[in-house]
Amino acid sequence: MPYTYETNGAAIYAESFATIRSEAKLDRFDADEERVAVRMIHAAGLIGLEEHIRFSSDVVVHARDALKAGAPILCDARMVSEGITRKRLPADNQVICTLHAPEVADLASGLGTTRSAAALELWRPHLGGAVVAIGNAPTALFHLLEMLESRDCPRPAAIIGCPVGFVGAAESKAALWAAGTVPCVIVQGRLGGSAITVAAINAIASPAE
Amino acid sequence: MPYTYETNGAAIYAESFATIRSEAKLDRFDADEERVAVRMIHAAGLIGLEEHIRFSSDVVVHARDALKAGAPILCDARMVSEGITRKRLPADNQVICTLHAPEVADLASGLGTTRSAAALELWRPHLGGAVVAIGNAPTALFHLLEMLESRDCPRPAAIIGCPVGFVGAAESKAALWAAGTVPCVIVQGRLGGSAITVAAINAIASPAE
Repeated sequence: MPYTYETNGAAIYAESFATIRSEAKLDRFDADEERVAVRMIHAAGLIGLEEHIRFSSDVVVHARDALKAGAPILCDARMVSEGITRKRLPADNQVICTLHAPEVADLASGLGTTRSAAALELWRPHLGGAVVAIGNAPTALFHLLEMLESRDCPRPAAIIGCPVGFVGAAESKAALWAAGTVPCVIVQGRLGGSAITVAAINAIASPAE
Repeated sequence: MPYTYETNGAAIYAESFATIRSEAKLDRFDADEERVAVRMIHAAGLIGLEEHIRFSSDVVVHARDALKAGAPILCDARMVSEGITRKRLPADNQVICTLHAPEVADLASGLGTTRSAAALELWRPHLGGAVVAIGNAPTALFHLLEMLESRDCPRPAAIIGCPVGFVGAAESKAALWAAGTVPCVIVQGRLGGSAITVAAINAIASPAE
């Protein structure tokens, strides 16, 4: 059986984004936010996701400026760090995931938390001015909020906080939004995940569609 | 502000899966399929995903037996290959992603298709009896179906076909289902993606929850 389908990558992107813009309710976003939201919807394959996306004031500008200035991107999972398109990064930015560092298991035992959360302790030397991308573990986002309770903890420039799931995801994102101390993007509720998080970073990193 | 949340990984999984089993409509699945569907819903954070999941007859058994016999897992994207939990694999199975092989760009130009599709040409030596995991590109799934039109092309043991998006995703999965030549798992329509695909592989690889 012959199969007929679009094989031009640029055409696939253009048609996908046109479909999203015709079907999704994007009116409440400014131009920067809209581009990010479109790419997040694209990654999820889900019209309606936009209803759950929240951008704090000027977060896209803050995050983009940080990346242009060379900020590293700190990721909670390898699916996030591997998904980020290196060619879109404006300053050959470092992409860091500490989850599989050898000391993480002991850190997790010592702190009485998950490995995903404990791995963030290794972010401290990189955290000042960084762009954070949490797309998997609610415990990682909660742990970051706890770290930021201390005045000694360096502040990231922006947090893309999109952990996914049924236990703690909605709560951790609501807590990030309520804390209001760092510019952030969240997906309210259970939806989220590595693909949506990667899409937000890729959209912030470059205006290219 | 103190944050109260579950920090025990096993407890988080147990509570998540219990929530999914209380909310999702899983009656039409057999026991093997149910475990896979639960983990796919978990990865997506989306009750209702189950309505779009289709398992061909005994696909979970076919795929699990292949993995136990040492079959490699062939992935269309690094987000898929990185997400697979190596500890769950029953035979220290190889996990292969050819997308970033140096010859892929030239292959894509020569074939007039995307890099994601062209990369599958490099699967041929591994394809016989393999478990395929396509979680990103509809063009990759279409290209695999085209390869399988030839009698000379080795047959995989099973295909997890869950590309995502707005152009070709629904069509490529419908074509896989209609072809009926290889046991498969699909998510009908636009939904899909690397996390859902990884979840299916992780669930098939081990009964551990």
